[in-house]
Amino acid sequence: MSIITLTTDFGIKDEYVGVIKGVILRINAGATLVDISHLIPPQAVALAGEMLKATFAWFPAGTIHLAVVDPGVGSSRAILAARYDGHVFIAPDNGLLPVIWGGQVPQRLVQVQNSRFYLDPVSDTFHGRDIFAPVAAHIAAGIDLEEFGPELTPAQIRRIVTRQPQRRGDREIAGLITGADHFGNLRTNIDRGQLESLKARCRSGSLTFELGDHSINGLSPTYGLNERGRVIALINSRSQLEIAVVGGSAADLVKAFEGMTVRVRCSE
Amino acid sequence: MSIITLTTDFGIKDEYVGVIKGVILRINAGATLVDISHLIPPQAVALAGEMLKATFAWFPAGTIHLAVVDPGVGSSRAILAARYDGHVFIAPDNGLLPVIWGGQVPQRLVQVQNSRFYLDPVSDTFHGRDIFAPVAAHIAAGIDLEEFGPELTPAQIRRIVTRQPQRRGDREIAGLITGADHFGNLRTNIDRGQLESLKARCRSGSLTFELGDHSINGLSPTYGLNERGRVIALINSRSQLEIAVVGGSAADLVKAFEGMTVRVRCSE
Amino acid sequence: MSIITLTTDFGIKDEYVGVIKGVILRINAGATLVDISHLIPPQAVALAGEMLKATFAWFPAGTIHLAVVDPGVGSSRAILAARYDGHVFIAPDNGLLPVIWGGQVPQRLVQVQNSRFYLDPVSDTFHGRDIFAPVAAHIAAGIDLEEFGPELTPAQIRRIVTRQPQRRGDREIAGLITGADHFGNLRTNIDRGQLESLKARCRSGSLTFELGDHSINGLSPTYGLNERGRVIALINSRSQLEIAVVGGSAADLVKAFEGMTVRVRCSE
Repeated sequence: MSIITLTTDFGIKDEYVGVIKGVILRINAGATLVDISHLIPPQAVALAGEMLKATFAWFPAGTIHLAVVDPGVGSSRAILAARYDGHVFIAPDNGLLPVIWGGQVPQRLVQVQNSRFYLDPVSDTFHGRDIFAPVAAHIAAGIDLEEFGPELTPAQIRRIVTRQPQRRGDREIAGLITGADHFGNLRTNIDRGQLESLKARCRSGSLTFELGDHSINGLSPTYGLNERGRVIALINSRSQLEIAVVGGSAADLVKAFEGMTVRVRCSE
Repeated sequence: MSIITLTTDFGIKDEYVGVIKGVILRINAGATLVDISHLIPPQAVALAGEMLKATFAWFPAGTIHLAVVDPGVGSSRAILAARYDGHVFIAPDNGLLPVIWGGQVPQRLVQVQNSRFYLDPVSDTFHGRDIFAPVAAHIAAGIDLEEFGPELTPAQIRRIVTRQPQRRGDREIAGLITGADHFGNLRTNIDRGQLESLKARCRSGSLTFELGDHSINGLSPTYGLNERGRVIALINSRSQLEIAVVGGSAADLVKAFEGMTVRVRCSE
Repeated sequence: MSIITLTTDFGIKDEYVGVIKGVILRINAGATLVDISHLIPPQAVALAGEMLKATFAWFPAGTIHLAVVDPGVGSSRAILAARYDGHVFIAPDNGLLPVIWGGQVPQRLVQVQNSRFYLDPVSDTFHGRDIFAPVAAHIAAGIDLEEFGPELTPAQIRRIVTRQPQRRGDREIAGLITGADHFGNLRTNIDRGQLESLKARCRSGSLTFELGDHSINGLSPTYGLNERGRVIALINSRSQLEIAVVGGSAADLVKAFEGMTVRVRCSE
């Protein structure tokens, strides 16, 4: 009984995801397959990493997480498999995996290169089908990571530099909007710990949030407690600062939001 | 071997549905998970209830149906679990469940409040993950509804008032368009029984349907029997009156359709 | 342990796919259900056949593939079940199945008409639920195809005439764009074999591709090897010629693409 999750930018109108599932089931008919998302914007590697970081730990230990966001398919970029925090991850060497583990170190990290576990032949255009899917299925069937290729150190793989919130003096931090969810709630790169440590430095003990023309006093505990249409700030299910509109869409209200600065400062 | 269906307004681009599945599988690795829809319009409680009403009985008895359309997440709204017609339903106390059972009475109805079955901690923003998913997984694992909290009577929970078709004299009823499906077929709130009892009162023995400028004589048995482009009326797979266009989309033809009046009268 | 794949034009916002899965699981609780696509454009029979042709062989032998793109639901069109290349296919008699097997012949072909395997009653509007789903579930449970109805010969069923690439003299073929995938890559009706046999006739040993104003020299092995924005030609995962834009969408670049002519000729 093994679980394999799938996170891709393949979309849902074509056969690509179905084909990957077919290949996995051909090797490992008992695998349980769970879609995380196939609507990662094309080639948005960091966003896929953030999503998987927010997701993996809710699955049972031992789950295998396959992330195929792979602008370099067919090029010489490596393919990685890692064991981290009791889960297994498989992804191209494009910076996706380090987003998941942040400053931590994986328990094991290998470069997948043993073609015994690939389909034969391997195309240049669809490694998801020809390499990633069969490798995931074989790991789910109990093959050790070491069988797939040589061990790497974390320093040997690619990292993406993601923009971090900036401290401005003792009483303010500036982050940015990283995207919107299905409801139009605006995600930021500011996390709960950063908010709490800023708040601890405020004499007023409370925070003010600024996004474009909007100024928001204090954190709301959840979405539906204020009057409809009110712009609120809250800590979302990823434990990050989020800007939302009660009963509506912040993304509709705040146009051209991605990359916008969010300022958080001590309330006067 | 237990089945859990999922009906939400979470969309499919974010990780939310995947996270719920992870939580369920962590508690109950053998559960079979089936998506009904995650594209319920945000917070459209009645529509989710209508959908589940049209769906549940096609599943095996004993299936657990989880419906998370929850504008009140984190507020004091209650969470309900019910046994009705051989199936189990879990939803917020926001009127969704009574839409499913209509005038009938559930065999058992409890308020979920035993936090022993929740994740710990429970966030204020994602009860789908922290409460609904683990409760569904535990019910699927065989825990009795009674274990989750005190019994309620149907009178103690919220109802949504949905608009019913109006009789106008003996020979006419007026209903309304409640939405469109993927094909652009227009659903109404008029059901088969109402049409049949009107028809029984008609001397002509046949019905005329009026929607905006369109007048339709008689019911078609199915979609593809008339010439392309013809506007037709038929009884759909939910046993409700539907307005369709042969080989096309009624929603494209009849603009601004939601809430429009549909008149049904005896043909002359 | 049997696998049933689902390919439909039902979309994903309504309950239709979920209802089909419920009916299958009620008959055959152990079936593994895999979605291929539910976003086939409404009633695009040939496209569904092409998709299933590109998909089925990646699944384990014995998989049952259910394709419900059925503009004739409720009319007198027949329903077919076939065994081909170790897999089972169920579809309306509308030309879909012959697209899958092309010039080949199925090992067995029957007309489904034994209502013992249908739901009772059968509606006129949703044969996916009332006929296709229960038939698939019973086949998955081991009932022989012969039990479902009389055998047919391939000549007795409908075929769709699809446009084939045209040879223009010895040094050129003209095909057409058949659609775009999620990434905006433009699919054509020209396959690998046709390109290779043209190339073998070229003195230069290389090919030039023309689409609208764009002229492309030579095939790229994969998507990401040229500079961003470059229009390239390559052989895709369906083994067909595809026009793509490195790091972008060819469908966005080349407007009104469907049905456009693609010329392939020997490079000078």
